[in-house]
Amino acid sequence: MNEAAGAPKKVTSGISGSHLTDAMDHQLEILLSAANYDAVKTLLEPVQPVDIAEAIGSLPLVLQALAFRLLSKNEAIEVYEYLDPSIQQSLLDRLRSSEVLELVEEMSPDDRVRLFDELPAKVVRRLLAELSPSERRVTAQLLGYEPETGGRLMTTEFIDLKEFHNAAQALSIVRSQAADKETIYSLYVTDRERHLTGILSLRDLVTADPEDLIGDVMTRDVVSVRTDTDQEEVARAIQRYDFLALPVVDRENRLVGIVTVDDVIDVIEQEATRDLYAAGAVQAGDEDDYFQSNLFVVARRRVVWLVVLVIANGLTTQVIAMNDAVLKQVVLLAAFIPLLIGTGGNVGAQSSTVVIRGLSTQRIQALGLMKAIFREALAGALLGLLMLLVVVPFAWWRGEGPLVGAAVGISLMAITTLAATAGAALPLLFDRMGLDPALMSAPFITTATDVAGVLIYLKTAAWLLAHMHGVNT
Amino acid sequence: MNEAAGAPKKVTSGISGSHLTDAMDHQLEILLSAANYDAVKTLLEPVQPVDIAEAIGSLPLVLQALAFRLLSKNEAIEVYEYLDPSIQQSLLDRLRSSEVLELVEEMSPDDRVRLFDELPAKVVRRLLAELSPSERRVTAQLLGYEPETGGRLMTTEFIDLKEFHNAAQALSIVRSQAADKETIYSLYVTDRERHLTGILSLRDLVTADPEDLIGDVMTRDVVSVRTDTDQEEVARAIQRYDFLALPVVDRENRLVGIVTVDDVIDVIEQEATRDLYAAGAVQAGDEDDYFQSNLFVVARRRVVWLVVLVIANGLTTQVIAMNDAVLKQVVLLAAFIPLLIGTGGNVGAQSSTVVIRGLSTQRIQALGLMKAIFREALAGALLGLLMLLVVVPFAWWRGEGPLVGAAVGISLMAITTLAATAGAALPLLFDRMGLDPALMSAPFITTATDVAGVLIYLKTAAWLLAHMHGVNT
Repeated sequence: MNEAAGAPKKVTSGISGSHLTDAMDHQLEILLSAANYDAVKTLLEPVQPVDIAEAIGSLPLVLQALAFRLLSKNEAIEVYEYLDPSIQQSLLDRLRSSEVLELVEEMSPDDRVRLFDELPAKVVRRLLAELSPSERRVTAQLLGYEPETGGRLMTTEFIDLKEFHNAAQALSIVRSQAADKETIYSLYVTDRERHLTGILSLRDLVTADPEDLIGDVMTRDVVSVRTDTDQEEVARAIQRYDFLALPVVDRENRLVGIVTVDDVIDVIEQEATRDLYAAGAVQAGDEDDYFQSNLFVVARRRVVWLVVLVIANGLTTQVIAMNDAVLKQVVLLAAFIPLLIGTGGNVGAQSSTVVIRGLSTQRIQALGLMKAIFREALAGALLGLLMLLVVVPFAWWRGEGPLVGAAVGISLMAITTLAATAGAALPLLFDRMGLDPALMSAPFITTATDVAGVLIYLKTAAWLLAHMHGVNT
Repeated sequence: MNEAAGAPKKVTSGISGSHLTDAMDHQLEILLSAANYDAVKTLLEPVQPVDIAEAIGSLPLVLQALAFRLLSKNEAIEVYEYLDPSIQQSLLDRLRSSEVLELVEEMSPDDRVRLFDELPAKVVRRLLAELSPSERRVTAQLLGYEPETGGRLMTTEFIDLKEFHNAAQALSIVRSQAADKETIYSLYVTDRERHLTGILSLRDLVTADPEDLIGDVMTRDVVSVRTDTDQEEVARAIQRYDFLALPVVDRENRLVGIVTVDDVIDVIEQEATRDLYAAGAVQAGDEDDYFQSNLFVVARRRVVWLVVLVIANGLTTQVIAMNDAVLKQVVLLAAFIPLLIGTGGNVGAQSSTVVIRGLSTQRIQALGLMKAIFREALAGALLGLLMLLVVVPFAWWRGEGPLVGAAVGISLMAITTLAATAGAALPLLFDRMGLDPALMSAPFITTATDVAGVLIYLKTAAWLLAHMHGVNT
C-alpha cells in the first residue's frame, strides 16, 4: 500500500501537473544566485503554491527572502501560508517591516492564528498592535479559544445571507464577496441577532429560480458545532456527513465561523499520527515535525516513556529474582520467558490496537463496551489454544521433558487470555474515566502483561515441580 | 485528545443538528411496529441520510426493508449508499426486484461499484445485465480498474465544458446538469478528443464576466492523476493541494473521471487504520469492520502474525538454551532478560513507528534516508546512555554484585543502539525494495531485537565471568 510513499523524488509516478522537480529546485537556486529574476518568475508561474513553498523551504537561507519577494502579492500570501513555521519566522526577520505587516494583514484569520501560535509572544503583541482594527479584533477573538477546538480551527471568512433575500440578490452578494471568503460553496443564513437559521449550498442557489426567497430554499435542519467542540469531533462530523464546511456557533447559537474540509483532513492525519506514536511509545509534538527536530528534542520525546517502561520492567525483574529457586532447579525454564511474555505482549497489543482504533473511529460503540471486552477475552483464549499446538511440542523437546512443556502450555493459555482482556479493558476504562485511551496502548499493555506473565509461569512451574517430582530433570 | 471518541451515546456534546438519538432509534422501532408510517416520515424528515442509515442498521431485520420503503426515492438512494455492505445485501434480498433495479440504476457509479465489490459475482452479473446500457457501460469500465486505484475511486459524474463556451453559456450548462453530478464546484475543460486542457472552479465561473471565454478564464496548469495511480497517492495529492476534487485521466490524457475530497478522507483514515493495525500485528480487513466480524474471522486476522512471531520467539529460546551454562553459574542474570529485551524492543518500536509514519506522510524524504538511519542510531545510543543511569544501579543491587550490573549496562547500550538502527533501517529497506514498510513495524522489530539482545547479553556475561573471576557470586 505504500509504494508511493517511498518515492525518493518529488515527482511521483501517478501525479502529473505542477510539481517542482528536484532539477527545477536546483535551477531555481542557480537563477536566483545569478539574479535572473525574470527567469525565476517564468519558472514559478505554472507551479502550485504548496510546491513553491516547498521549493523556497529547500533554498539556502539567504535566497529565501529573495525568492519570496519575486512572487505576486496574492501568490506570496498563499505561499506563505504553506511554509513551515520555522521558515515563516525566519522570513519575518528578513523582510522589511512594511512587507511583514502587509503579509500578516492579508492572511486568512485562521492561518494567521496558526502562525501566531508559533511566534514568540513579544512578536505576536507587536504584530497584533499593527494590524487594522477589524483584523486585530477577529485575531484576538480566535486566539481566545482553547487550542484544538472548533473555535481555533475555524475561519471567520464566510458568506452570510438573510432569509428575505431572493436567489438573484444572494448570487450577487456571493459574487461581490467571493474574493475575500474561504469558501463560497457553503452559504449561511442568519437573523438580525446573527443566530444561524439555515444553510444552503451554492449548488442550491444556482439551481434555484432567481425569484425564490432564500428562506424558502434553504435547509433549516443544520448540523453545527460549538467553539469549544474538540477538533477531532469537528473532523468526525465533517467526515460523517461528507460536508465541505461546518458552521461553528457560540453558546447563544450565533454563527461565529466555519470549519472547512481541507483543515479537517489535516486534523484527521494529526490524530492518526498521535495514535500511532502512542502505539510506539513516542510522545507526539505539536505537529508531525519529528524529522525536523534535533537529536535532543527527539530524545526528550522518547526518554520519558522509556524510563516509565523500564521501571515497570524492573517489576518483572523483581518477580523473577524472588522466584529464582525454581530457575535454580530447572534453568531451562528461563529460556521460555521471552517467548511467553513476548506472545502475551503481542496478543495484548493486538487487543489494545483494535480497541483504541475503534474508539478513535467511533466504531466500537456499535458493539457495546462489556461485549467488546468479553469478545477480546474469548479471542485471547482461542488464540492461546491455537498457539499451544506449536508451542507445547517445542517446549517439551527444547525443555527436555514434560515439566517445561506443561508449565509453558498452561501459562501460555492464562497469559494470552489475560493479555487480551487487559488490552481491551484498560483503554476502555481510561476512556470512561475521561483519560486518553491511547495511554493504554501496546507498550504499556505489553509491559504490564510481562509482570503478570512471569509470575504465572514461575508459580505454575513451581507447583508442577512440587507435584510432578521425579518426572523431570 | 479522545474525550469525544468515547461518548457512549450517539449525540456527542459538541455537535448539534440532526443526529438521531438512542431514544429516537427506539421511537422509530415502536412506530414501525405499530405501522404508524406517517409518524415515521415526520420523525425522519429532518434527519441526515447517514444518521437514517445508522438507525435502519440498528433495527431488527424484519423492519429494515419497511423503514427503507418509507423514504422518498432520492433520499432512499442517499441512505442506501451509507448503509453497511451486509445491510445493503440483506435489503437487496428483501426488496422487490423492480425496487432493487431502480435503486441500483440511480446510484452514483462509484457507489455502485463499491456495492458490487461486496456482492456475490452471480448477483452482480444479474444486476449488470438489468442496468440501462449507459449505466452498464460505465459500471463495467470502473470495475475494470484495479482495486485501490484512482480509477476505482473516481466517479464519472463530472461536468465538462469547452474552451469556446462563454461564462454565461457555461453557467447554464452547470445549472442544467447540476442534479446528476457528484460536484459542480470543480469544472473541467476538454477538447474534441476529450483530452483535459484546463480546469476552473465554480467560484471562477460566477465571478467571471458573462462574455468571458472559458478558454481565457480557465487554469491550464492542471494537477491530475491516472486511473492506475495508487489511491493513497491520490489522497495525498488532494490533501497537499487542498483541492475539492482531482481529475483522473487515462494514458492518452483523456479525462475519464474525478475523485472528490469526501472519498479521500475515507482513504486517509483507512490507510491510517492499516498502519495502526500493522503496528499492533493485526491484519487489516477490507474495511474497518473488526467489530462487526465474528470471533473466527477475528482469530484468523490475528493468528498468522502471532504464529510468525512465536516462531521468531523460539529463536530467542534457542539462544538462551544454548547459553544456559552462564545462567547455571549466575541464575539472577535471567531476571534481567525481560528488562533488556523489553527496553530494546521499546526503542526499536519507537524508531520503526516514526520512520513508518514518516514514509506514510511523506515527510521523511526531506531528511534523506541514510541521514534518517544515522540519526536514529545516534538517538538509540543516547537513549541507552540515559537509561544506564537508572538501570545499572538497580542491576548492581538486585543482581547482587558488579557482574550483573556490568553485563546489563554494556548490553543495554549495545541493544538500544542496534534496535534503533534496525527499527529505522528495516522499514526503509522494505520500502526501497517495493515492499510495504509497515511489515517491519514494532512487533517484528521487537521480536528480531529479542534474539540479538539475549545473545549480546549472555555472551557479555560469559566474557565478564571469565575475566572478572572471583569478583562475584
